[in-house]
Amino acid sequence: MRSQTDSAGGLRHLVTLDGLPRSLLTAILDRAESYRRIPGQPAYEGRELAAITVANLFFEPSTRTRASFDLAARRLGAHVLNLDLQSSSRVKGETMLDTIYTLEAMNTDVFVIRDSEAGMPEFLIDHVAPHVSVISAGEAHLSHPTQGLLDVMTIRTHKRRFEGLKVAIVGDIKHSRVARSTARALATLGTTDLRIVGPQRLLPGEHEFPGATRFTRIEDGIAAADVVMMLRIQKERMAEAAALDGEAYFREYGLTAKRLALAADDAIVMHPGPMNRGVEIDSAVADGPRSVIREQVNNGVAVRMAVLAAIAATLTRHRRPL
Amino acid sequence: MRSQTDSAGGLRHLVTLDGLPRSLLTAILDRAESYRRIPGQPAYEGRELAAITVANLFFEPSTRTRASFDLAARRLGAHVLNLDLQSSSRVKGETMLDTIYTLEAMNTDVFVIRDSEAGMPEFLIDHVAPHVSVISAGEAHLSHPTQGLLDVMTIRTHKRRFEGLKVAIVGDIKHSRVARSTARALATLGTTDLRIVGPQRLLPGEHEFPGATRFTRIEDGIAAADVVMMLRIQKERMAEAAALDGEAYFREYGLTAKRLALAADDAIVMHPGPMNRGVEIDSAVADGPRSVIREQVNNGVAVRMAVLAAIAATLTRHRRPL
Amino acid sequence: MRSQTDSAGGLRHLVTLDGLPRSLLTAILDRAESYRRIPGQPAYEGRELAAITVANLFFEPSTRTRASFDLAARRLGAHVLNLDLQSSSRVKGETMLDTIYTLEAMNTDVFVIRDSEAGMPEFLIDHVAPHVSVISAGEAHLSHPTQGLLDVMTIRTHKRRFEGLKVAIVGDIKHSRVARSTARALATLGTTDLRIVGPQRLLPGEHEFPGATRFTRIEDGIAAADVVMMLRIQKERMAEAAALDGEAYFREYGLTAKRLALAADDAIVMHPGPMNRGVEIDSAVADGPRSVIREQVNNGVAVRMAVLAAIAATLTRHRRPL
Repeated sequence: MRSQTDSAGGLRHLVTLDGLPRSLLTAILDRAESYRRIPGQPAYEGRELAAITVANLFFEPSTRTRASFDLAARRLGAHVLNLDLQSSSRVKGETMLDTIYTLEAMNTDVFVIRDSEAGMPEFLIDHVAPHVSVISAGEAHLSHPTQGLLDVMTIRTHKRRFEGLKVAIVGDIKHSRVARSTARALATLGTTDLRIVGPQRLLPGEHEFPGATRFTRIEDGIAAADVVMMLRIQKERMAEAAALDGEAYFREYGLTAKRLALAADDAIVMHPGPMNRGVEIDSAVADGPRSVIREQVNNGVAVRMAVLAAIAATLTRHRRPL
Repeated sequence: MRSQTDSAGGLRHLVTLDGLPRSLLTAILDRAESYRRIPGQPAYEGRELAAITVANLFFEPSTRTRASFDLAARRLGAHVLNLDLQSSSRVKGETMLDTIYTLEAMNTDVFVIRDSEAGMPEFLIDHVAPHVSVISAGEAHLSHPTQGLLDVMTIRTHKRRFEGLKVAIVGDIKHSRVARSTARALATLGTTDLRIVGPQRLLPGEHEFPGATRFTRIEDGIAAADVVMMLRIQKERMAEAAALDGEAYFREYGLTAKRLALAADDAIVMHPGPMNRGVEIDSAVADGPRSVIREQVNNGVAVRMAVLAAIAATLTRHRRPL
Repeated sequence: MRSQTDSAGGLRHLVTLDGLPRSLLTAILDRAESYRRIPGQPAYEGRELAAITVANLFFEPSTRTRASFDLAARRLGAHVLNLDLQSSSRVKGETMLDTIYTLEAMNTDVFVIRDSEAGMPEFLIDHVAPHVSVISAGEAHLSHPTQGLLDVMTIRTHKRRFEGLKVAIVGDIKHSRVARSTARALATLGTTDLRIVGPQRLLPGEHEFPGATRFTRIEDGIAAADVVMMLRIQKERMAEAAALDGEAYFREYGLTAKRLALAADDAIVMHPGPMNRGVEIDSAVADGPRSVIREQVNNGVAVRMAVLAAIAATLTRHRRPL
């Protein structure tokens, strides 16, 4: 895969957090904080993406992430194309490239792509023009870089440090692109105590998540944790979790107030959404004083604005003259 | 339900016209007139909704009303999210709230909601943040407040008064949210002679439409009327109307030039659209000199701009400081 | 059909290139060149369509053409409504007109319409208000005027003349609206040597394409040609082409490097897209140095901007005063 940064170190693409230096991540988070407006404040409106066209290619349904990217781009002045496309498995290779080249020829500058299969974002990076960028909005179980960034942005706001932090991620780690990207961001920023927690069959292969400690009992995994991040458990994984139904899963792994009391006194509770209340998390915890779940959503828009603005600044250097 | 106005009397939500004072309705109509541009004039473009995000949540298909709200918001500078959502009956309660909270966390300021079932707009009003507003774009058979407002705006333009006016609404009153909202707006503005006209089985319960006179013969109902408002008759109601088909309904209740001659000489003809020509209204009447049906559509955009602008002005007072 | 130009010669509608004078076509091409930005340059952003509302009525699925019109309109400052409509055959006549009148009443200024059946664009021209314009984005097998314009724009860039030019169009001419519109544009601009090339059963009726030479062998048709334009061959036409499958068609009519060597040394290769690689064109040719296929897409946005801007300028003269 081609580099995600240009020779000046500017962000060109964002399909994985692997290999991106701490300084770049920190710069994105700093920029995101300048864009963040909490609900009730008027949203930031800027022109950083003026004359930029962003095409959202979502091969997987997504209301939340698409709305987040859509608003992020429009609030910075971009034109956004939301394209209805068939499942990427039916348009692989040449046909997909012709679609991309067609959109490039219409002066599309940024492709935001979400796909339940692996490989398309990297394939695109290797084929787009020098003045075009690719952002992954979720790729199979592998990568969801803007989610990883919004998670560490949320942690930074509350914890002001990454070194020495104890972070527990609980749930279906094996199939989770969120867990992978967040773990990567945490590692880059200096967190060394990462716990991955879930039923044995939902834990990842042993070579994945290097340095993380594995737990199959949630009580052990979240003990003294500063951050407890719950993942969505999907119905089709219930059997793999050896839980016959949501209630059984909740009894073994659901985050309740009682379990949360095992974590640090000032632990924050995170969830990438959408939540299954009563399955992986109790409503009282989801809506409780420790929950920063809505802040994550709020930071998501800010992080996507920051990524888009950073990419637009890089593209400016690769523009052809008029 | 929480109040639709704030302590300063500013419009916060609009899900029903019940309880709104005449002064507020008049202020909205006055503002709508300042926004109205007849076809052929360039549309009004303003910044009243700059940095405002409006989410259209339509649980019921609607090309016309959605386009009207969409254009109204965008012509005042808003960002509009058009979300594809499942039928609200499948996402009630917690799940719906999580969607709303998620969109709030993305700095959505206004929710425009249309639903074939009752209850969602009120439910949302009771749960949204203090800086977020809810507008109903049609709720079951109960309420369609912007339609009520555009109807009285149209009447005001042509009649210049509401007191002493004779208004007949003809058709399926029982299932009509339009009839309920327009009747309410007329009552608030001073009209006392309201006739509701239709087959017995399509007239509402006896406690509804207080003060209105009921007619089962259209000739009686529209006699000397200043305003004749025809409602769409839906195929699935034909049986209830004891009419086997559209032709039979037209013979009994269709508005023809001959029947219109029974109304006042300067009577206007209204219809909320979409029309069934040859069922509830003859084409010659729909397109004739007395018809103000297209003016209603034109006023619809202006009224929605006025409602959005009034709400935005109120929200400004409830903003959190930067 | 009413005239497509107003009394001052300004463009009012564009549903066919038939009857439009060379001076008007040249003016559109000149304007399009001022809007053209090659990929890598920042897209042109203007306010030529400020306060203009464009409604895209696509009765036939189209990702490419719709995106092209959408971006063209938005980059000039228009509001764009993308409407999901049923097949026009189900909404003909009165119902269609009511939709149009409704959108007119919302101050829609321009209708862009694409339909697999014939007649709707002309029908609309005959019914819209004096301050409303109609643009065809593809009508049955008959007309695709903006495609014709982008084709001649691309030819002009490379050949700098139309007189004396040898142009071959190869494929399913019979069912191609592209071929018809491009042939018309070429004739208006002075090209007299047009060859239409394809299997006998896919050639048009003998009274169509007056003055064109017909070929059933591609080698004969493209000999010494300055421009070779390949058309998409659709699977359902394979039988008519007497080719059992794509491979058989490719053997007889596919454009290969070897066949292209028969054309002029500096011949350009065109295709309206989307391509069937390996059916009507070899990938090596599609992506080769003679191919201007992506330039066509790029010019497509510029031509649509020019058409919209020309129409907006005309509409300004037909506006009603405020």
